[in-house]
Amino acid sequence: MGLFFVMMVPLANAGDDLPPPSHGIQYPLGWQDWAVLAVSHRTDNQTLRVILGNDTAIRAARSGRINPWPDGTILGKVVWKKRPLKDWSEAMVPGELVHAEFMLKDSGKYRQTYGWGWARWLGLQQKPFNDGPQVCISCHEPVKERDWVFTDPATFPKRP
Amino acid sequence: MGLFFVMMVPLANAGDDLPPPSHGIQYPLGWQDWAVLAVSHRTDNQTLRVILGNDTAIRAARSGRINPWPDGTILGKVVWKKRPLKDWSEAMVPGELVHAEFMLKDSGKYRQTYGWGWARWLGLQQKPFNDGPQVCISCHEPVKERDWVFTDPATFPKRP
Repeated sequence: MGLFFVMMVPLANAGDDLPPPSHGIQYPLGWQDWAVLAVSHRTDNQTLRVILGNDTAIRAARSGRINPWPDGTILGKVVWKKRPLKDWSEAMVPGELVHAEFMLKDSGKYRQTYGWGWARWLGLQQKPFNDGPQVCISCHEPVKERDWVFTDPATFPKRP
Repeated sequence: MGLFFVMMVPLANAGDDLPPPSHGIQYPLGWQDWAVLAVSHRTDNQTLRVILGNDTAIRAARSGRINPWPDGTILGKVVWKKRPLKDWSEAMVPGELVHAEFMLKDSGKYRQTYGWGWARWLGLQQKPFNDGPQVCISCHEPVKERDWVFTDPATFPKRP
């Protein structure tokens, strides 16, 4: 009885606070530290965005191998409502966090959704979005010839 | 003679392609992979920006210790001319790279310039800007009570 009780106590670890999956996809760990692919300002819905990539994505972007993006790529898009900066009102800067959304490339596993897993977590609580990947896919339809990706990686100076 | 000759041949290394210093400040290595503090769209000069931080800066931002920013902080701002995205014309995205500029905090070393070293490298060639830090400082005057920093770190979900 004592042993059984001990076995039921989970050990605390990094995964304990993980938001639940979105469309069956596990929450990507550590994306807050990923490098930048691009930024954008959507003037139609008043949001600012940064587009991040995992190591595979960054290597692919820097070597121009992005149509198709390689398996293992994860693209992350962080979206904020825009607001003017208090001390420079012509500058639009991030306000409230809207969501963080991800495209995960695996041409086998995600064959039925055009080679990508589509996931989104809402707000600071990172509540999983589970209305179905078709919501994401239909918006990305205009860029299906670009491997379904809107982002043009921004031009960066090469690392010396 | 043979030995002397060998000693004069420098070994190739990462520093060989380093852009020359700006205001006496060495080019920060690896900033292209730094994590994101914020983004901005300056509607007065039609540029998009991403604001990056080295590890010290990111730790300070995430724990709210940014007035003053700690010694060792480096803030990087990458600036692009904006252009509309071809496949979503209401989205403004990075066009031509304008420059990458940096603030390096060292309250002793840079005491005469308000605790910050001010550096900038222009264009893809990363040509050093050497017109004097006063050019930078005068623009940052409106935020002298915020340790001379315009950027409000954007709100990110905590890492699980």
